[in-house]
Amino acid sequence: MNILEIIEKKRDNKKLNKEEIEYFIKGYTNGEIADYQAAALIMAIYINGMDEEEITNMTLAMASSGEMLDLSDLGTVVDKHSSGGVGDKVTLILMPIMASLGVNVAKMSGRSLGFTGGTADKLEAIPGYNINLSIEEFKENVKKIGISLITQTGNLAPADKKIYALRDAISCTSSIPLIASSIMSKKIAAGANKIVLDVTCGSGAFMKNIHDAKELAIQMNKIGKLANKETICVITNMNEPLGYAVGNNLEIVEAVNSLKGNMPKDVEEVVLSLGAYMLKLARKGENIEENKNRIQETIKTGKAFHKFVELVENQGGDITYIENTEKFSKAKYEIEVLSKNDGYIKEMNAEEIGKLASKLGAGRTKKEDEIDYTAGIVLNKKVGDTVKVNEKLATLYTNKEQYEEAKEELERIIKISEEKVEKEETILGIVK
Amino acid sequence: MNILEIIEKKRDNKKLNKEEIEYFIKGYTNGEIADYQAAALIMAIYINGMDEEEITNMTLAMASSGEMLDLSDLGTVVDKHSSGGVGDKVTLILMPIMASLGVNVAKMSGRSLGFTGGTADKLEAIPGYNINLSIEEFKENVKKIGISLITQTGNLAPADKKIYALRDAISCTSSIPLIASSIMSKKIAAGANKIVLDVTCGSGAFMKNIHDAKELAIQMNKIGKLANKETICVITNMNEPLGYAVGNNLEIVEAVNSLKGNMPKDVEEVVLSLGAYMLKLARKGENIEENKNRIQETIKTGKAFHKFVELVENQGGDITYIENTEKFSKAKYEIEVLSKNDGYIKEMNAEEIGKLASKLGAGRTKKEDEIDYTAGIVLNKKVGDTVKVNEKLATLYTNKEQYEEAKEELERIIKISEEKVEKEETILGIVK
Repeated sequence: MNILEIIEKKRDNKKLNKEEIEYFIKGYTNGEIADYQAAALIMAIYINGMDEEEITNMTLAMASSGEMLDLSDLGTVVDKHSSGGVGDKVTLILMPIMASLGVNVAKMSGRSLGFTGGTADKLEAIPGYNINLSIEEFKENVKKIGISLITQTGNLAPADKKIYALRDAISCTSSIPLIASSIMSKKIAAGANKIVLDVTCGSGAFMKNIHDAKELAIQMNKIGKLANKETICVITNMNEPLGYAVGNNLEIVEAVNSLKGNMPKDVEEVVLSLGAYMLKLARKGENIEENKNRIQETIKTGKAFHKFVELVENQGGDITYIENTEKFSKAKYEIEVLSKNDGYIKEMNAEEIGKLASKLGAGRTKKEDEIDYTAGIVLNKKVGDTVKVNEKLATLYTNKEQYEEAKEELERIIKISEEKVEKEETILGIVK
Repeated sequence: MNILEIIEKKRDNKKLNKEEIEYFIKGYTNGEIADYQAAALIMAIYINGMDEEEITNMTLAMASSGEMLDLSDLGTVVDKHSSGGVGDKVTLILMPIMASLGVNVAKMSGRSLGFTGGTADKLEAIPGYNINLSIEEFKENVKKIGISLITQTGNLAPADKKIYALRDAISCTSSIPLIASSIMSKKIAAGANKIVLDVTCGSGAFMKNIHDAKELAIQMNKIGKLANKETICVITNMNEPLGYAVGNNLEIVEAVNSLKGNMPKDVEEVVLSLGAYMLKLARKGENIEENKNRIQETIKTGKAFHKFVELVENQGGDITYIENTEKFSKAKYEIEVLSKNDGYIKEMNAEEIGKLASKLGAGRTKKEDEIDYTAGIVLNKKVGDTVKVNEKLATLYTNKEQYEEAKEELERIIKISEEKVEKEETILGIVK
C-alpha cells in the first residue's frame, strides 16, 4: 500500500477500504504523508465523495489518531457543536447557561474556517483568556466551577486538526463526509457521551439547503449510533448572519449582552432549542417547553451571566472587559453603510458577509494568517425588517485603509425590496 | 481574487478565466501559493478537466513564468517534441537530418524519469559532449553549424517544472489538459514558432490508447493555433520499444548506425513522418512524399551523419566514438535471453521493458539518481517476427550482479504465440 495508489483510487471515484483510510490518517498524522498529498486526496474525496462505511472508518481513524479523552469522572457531559456559520456566538451564550443549570460543560472549540468564525478565536479576543489548557486543568476547571471552554488540544484527534486546517486552506470545507467525520471524530475523542449538534443551513453554512443539512444530520446521527453516543441534531437557519455582529471582539460583546438579557431574537431561538435538548439529554428535564422556560429564567436572574464571568476569570481572562465591553479595542476605521431606498430587507447573504468580514481582517485565507480581532461588521437590520432611505444598515470595522470597496460590496450584499418580505424560520428541523 | 476562490471554482467544475489562471501560475511560481493549495487545484483540474481556452491560458501563463527565449534571429526554427517513450532515439537521428537539409535546429531536451528515456542523458553518454550551454552559446552554435542540442535551462517555464514535479507526487500525471499544457508551455518558452509533436501511444507512453492520444494531439493543436504557433502532431505506436536498443550508450550506437543508413524500420517510419512535416512547416517542401525522399537521400549521401559528427565536435564531444562506436564502454555483464519456444513475438510491453532497463541501471527512480550509461537492453526481435526455440530474443547489459531476476523478468515480458501475429502500424495518425 502506498499513498499514490490511495490518491489514484479516490481520484478515479473508487471506494477506499478501512486499511487504506487508516494508512492515510496515520501517515498524515505522523508526517510521512506530505501536506500536498493529503490536499490532493482531500480534494478527490470532496469531489467524488465517500459512502457511509468510508465516513465511519474515517471518523474512527481520526478519533483514535491521538489521545481519547475519558470524562467519565465528570458524570454526564453533554457536548454541543455547530457545523459553522457567520455570526454564530451560540456556544459563548449557551454553555454558561447550561453550567448555570447544573449541566457539566467541558467543551473544546475550533478556530475560524473559511468564511465562518471560530469560537476559539472569539474566546482569545478576551485579553488574558487562555484557551490552551492541559486536559488535567480542563477537567479540574469543570470540577471546580462546572464549565471550561478551551480549544482542541494537540493530542486529541490530531488527524482531524491537521485535516481541518488543510481543508480551510484548500477550499474543501463544505463536504458532508468531511464535515460529518470531522465533527464526530472530535466529539468522540473529546469523551462526550451525549451530543447536541447545531446543523446550520443556508448561504452562510456549509450546507446550503435543507436537503444537504438533513443529510449531514442523518450522517452524524448514524455515526453517533455506531459509536454509541446519543446524538440529537437541530437544523438552524444560516441564510443571514446569526444575530447582528460578525467578527471576534464584536461577537464577544453581543454574547455578553445576550447573557445580560439583551439577546437578538434569532440567537435566542437557537439557544433555547439547543439548550432544551441538552437538558433533556442530561436527564435534567423531559419537557422541551419547560426546559426553555428554565433557560430564560437563568438568564433573567443573572445566573448565566455570572457563570460566564466565572468562566472567564477562571481561565485567566480580564473580566473587566466583560463587565464593561467598551474596553474592547476598536478598529481604526468605522464605516457606516446607509440605505439608498425605502423598503424591506430582502436578503443579506451570510456567506458573502462572512467573506467580507474576513477580508476586513476578521478571518484567515491561509492557516498561518493572523486575525484582526477588532475587524468585522455589525448589522442594524435583519431580513424582513423595514428600512428608510439614509437609515443605517450596518457598520464596517477595519484597520485597512482600502475600505471603500468593502462598503460598496456590503451595499450590494444587503438587498432591499419594495414589497413586504416575510421573516424566515430560525429552527428548520430536529433529527433525533 | 484569491487562491481559495480559484480552487473553489474548479472544485465546483466551473471555468477559470485568464486572470485566475495567471494568478495561480504566478503565485505558485513565486511561492506565494503553497504546494498543498496547488495540489488541491491540480486534483480538481484532473477530475473536472479544463476546456481549450483554459488549457491555452494555462500554457501561456506557464510559458511566460520565466525567461522567454527569442530565437527570431535564427530565422524559422522548427521544434520537435515527443511525449515520451522507451527506446526513443528519434531526436538524435532526426535533428541532424533536418540540419543537413537546411532547417535550423535549436532544441532542448529533458532527462529520463520513470520508465522513459531522455535525450539529454543519451547525449551525455558521448564522452565530452556538453549539454549545458548558455543561451548565447546555444544560439551561436546554431548560427555556426545550423544545429545545437542541449538540455533545458533553469529559467525556462519554471512554473511547468514545479507543477510537473508536484503532479508526479500526487498521482496527477495522466491528465490530458495537464500534459498538453506542460509540453506546449516548454516549447513556447523555448522560442519555437513551429512545432512538430510526436504523440506516443501505447503501453510505453502516457497515453495508453488511441482515443486519449488523439485527444492530447487535438488539445495541443488547439493550443498551438490559439498561441499562434503552427503545430502538427504525429501519433506513433509505443506498445513496444522503438527500434531495438534501450539504454543510453546502446541507443547512441543505434542512432549512429541509423544515420549511417542502417535504421530499424519503425524508427525510420517515425523519422520520415516527423521529418517530412518539419520540412513542410519550415517551408522547405509542401509534398510529404517528396520530403521523405529527400530525407532518405540526405542519409544515403552521408550528409546527415556528417552533420551529427559536426554537432558532436562543436559541443566538445569525442567524435572518435561516433566514427567507431566500438569505443563506447560496455557493461560488465551481457546476458543473452533465448526463446524457449517456436512461434511469433506477440507482445513486448514497452513500459515493462523501460522499467527493467531502468532497474539494470539505465534510468532513474528519483531525479538525483545517477545513470549507468552502459546499462540497458538490446532486443533482437520486433512484435510479429518469427522466432525459433533457442534463438536469441534479447541481450541484457548491466553492471549489477543480480541479473538473474532481470533475465526471468524479460522472459516473462516477451510473449510468444504459436499463431501468426500481425505487425502493428507505427504511424497511427496525423493531427494537423
